[in-house]
Amino acid sequence: MYLFSSILGVFVFDEESKLIDSMEFNDLGDYQNREEYTAKIKNKHKNLREPDEAAFKKILTHFKDKKYHTKFHEMNLAITKLGVKNSVNEDNLIIQSIKLIDELDKSINLLAKRLRDWYGLYNPEFSSSVHDHEKFVSEILDSSKDELLKKINVVRKDSMGADFEQENLEPVKSLAHRVHDLYQLRKSNLDYISSIMDVYCPNTKAVCDVILAAKLVEHAGSLKRLSLLPASTIQILGAEKALFRHMKTGAKSPKHGLIIGHSLMAATPMHLHGKLARALADKISIAAKVDYFQGQFIGDKLRKELEEKFK
Amino acid sequence: MYLFSSILGVFVFDEESKLIDSMEFNDLGDYQNREEYTAKIKNKHKNLREPDEAAFKKILTHFKDKKYHTKFHEMNLAITKLGVKNSVNEDNLIIQSIKLIDELDKSINLLAKRLRDWYGLYNPEFSSSVHDHEKFVSEILDSSKDELLKKINVVRKDSMGADFEQENLEPVKSLAHRVHDLYQLRKSNLDYISSIMDVYCPNTKAVCDVILAAKLVEHAGSLKRLSLLPASTIQILGAEKALFRHMKTGAKSPKHGLIIGHSLMAATPMHLHGKLARALADKISIAAKVDYFQGQFIGDKLRKELEEKFK
Repeated sequence: MYLFSSILGVFVFDEESKLIDSMEFNDLGDYQNREEYTAKIKNKHKNLREPDEAAFKKILTHFKDKKYHTKFHEMNLAITKLGVKNSVNEDNLIIQSIKLIDELDKSINLLAKRLRDWYGLYNPEFSSSVHDHEKFVSEILDSSKDELLKKINVVRKDSMGADFEQENLEPVKSLAHRVHDLYQLRKSNLDYISSIMDVYCPNTKAVCDVILAAKLVEHAGSLKRLSLLPASTIQILGAEKALFRHMKTGAKSPKHGLIIGHSLMAATPMHLHGKLARALADKISIAAKVDYFQGQFIGDKLRKELEEKFK
Repeated sequence: MYLFSSILGVFVFDEESKLIDSMEFNDLGDYQNREEYTAKIKNKHKNLREPDEAAFKKILTHFKDKKYHTKFHEMNLAITKLGVKNSVNEDNLIIQSIKLIDELDKSINLLAKRLRDWYGLYNPEFSSSVHDHEKFVSEILDSSKDELLKKINVVRKDSMGADFEQENLEPVKSLAHRVHDLYQLRKSNLDYISSIMDVYCPNTKAVCDVILAAKLVEHAGSLKRLSLLPASTIQILGAEKALFRHMKTGAKSPKHGLIIGHSLMAATPMHLHGKLARALADKISIAAKVDYFQGQFIGDKLRKELEEKFK
């Protein structure tokens, strides 16, 4: 006798491929417990075996019956939905967060420039004295015009700024509040990515810092794919345009892609960048593999080796 | 005797262009009261007259003395600063606000798309069932996943969305809050522009609605410049690219620029767009002139004439 199982249930056929017993699954739960059903039916019937090719063909014709079609469709849909549902993992969360950070940067930049321009009608001296957007936003939220002018040694009557009524100052302050909120959202998102990485890929995080690690995962598509990439690919990940230009026109090959953003790069003299990029990509490649296969934490060791070499 | 006044003060010179009396301004306040000083000195000396050209030249050499230089510089700077300060008017506020609205639209669009994507991991069925960004944002802030799924007749176990822990839902909710805030900021800015226009250019506002009126002011540079533009220019304001293409290559001339955004345009059949654009530009031109020269409110009359003609 043959044992045959599919997404519909488990079935027993005799030597002539006639159905003699079956346990159909009623829902996804039954399907997920399919091992149990198989065990039960194996207890009931002795000498069950897998159908050979000829028997298999005959058995399949049995399922051409229309009564199975709807069930097939339903179960298939349910299983696919479950697959989609289960496919959401840390990779997706990291990728969404890092993309958001990128978009927040764009929005903040746009709105902070508008804020400077607008606030500049009221207090141009201060607007041009502070270059950092974030500092600018929090200072104008915290202090009055007179306090801010005092900081830069200007008295109000010397200021070129117009005297705004409260009603005209209100929209500027509201804008400043919203920009401030966006900065906060950016910070909390960074913390969030960081907390995911502490569990999901602590080694990669230790070697590259949060933002770069997230960008690498985003660019590779997932930690799994990042861990499978050779170090030489990691080295130029994000510099695809330059790479293809190199291949097509023989221009110089890119020394580094995303990893140019690593904090060690800025601290290393230009002529060592190529060397550092190779070493860095090596360590990232190791870290990502350890993370994916859930090895022990060696991130700080890897990072230290790098820092010693390039200090 | 000659009377000579400059930004330094008022001076009296004799027929040989020798200084015999003066009242120098100490600060900007004195300069702003210069009429008073002139009156005083006229009381003191009788028979003062304006210097003729020859006398004028001699008098000017007197001010080549170095002791005046610093004072000249200081007063000049102070007067220029005052000019800058006083140049801020309703035009600037309208222009800043309308530019902000434009930038808010960009930012909201960017962040709302991210929100949809991210929230879609958790509740894809709802994410794709609501197309309006603003409605989407407020609904996911107000209701739980189960409530939202119920609205679109899906039960939770059929949903393809992943089950998020609270800690993974938090960042999505924060993002939704910030997007919601940006929508609110956009609304309050529209109200703000509207309240400025009620006093500053009620006629233009009545004829074109707030956003279009603000864009026209922004594009023209100020209400004054808008009021001086001929109707034919207003008609194609914002379609400069198409106009120059027309002039260079003989392509079709543009029928309308910014005014394509007028609510009447959408309600009027395509083949009447050119006619409507001319009529609309005419009325806007009248309204802007009335506003700039602070005439009576005829905006509703102008609007009505338009609506009657094109209904």
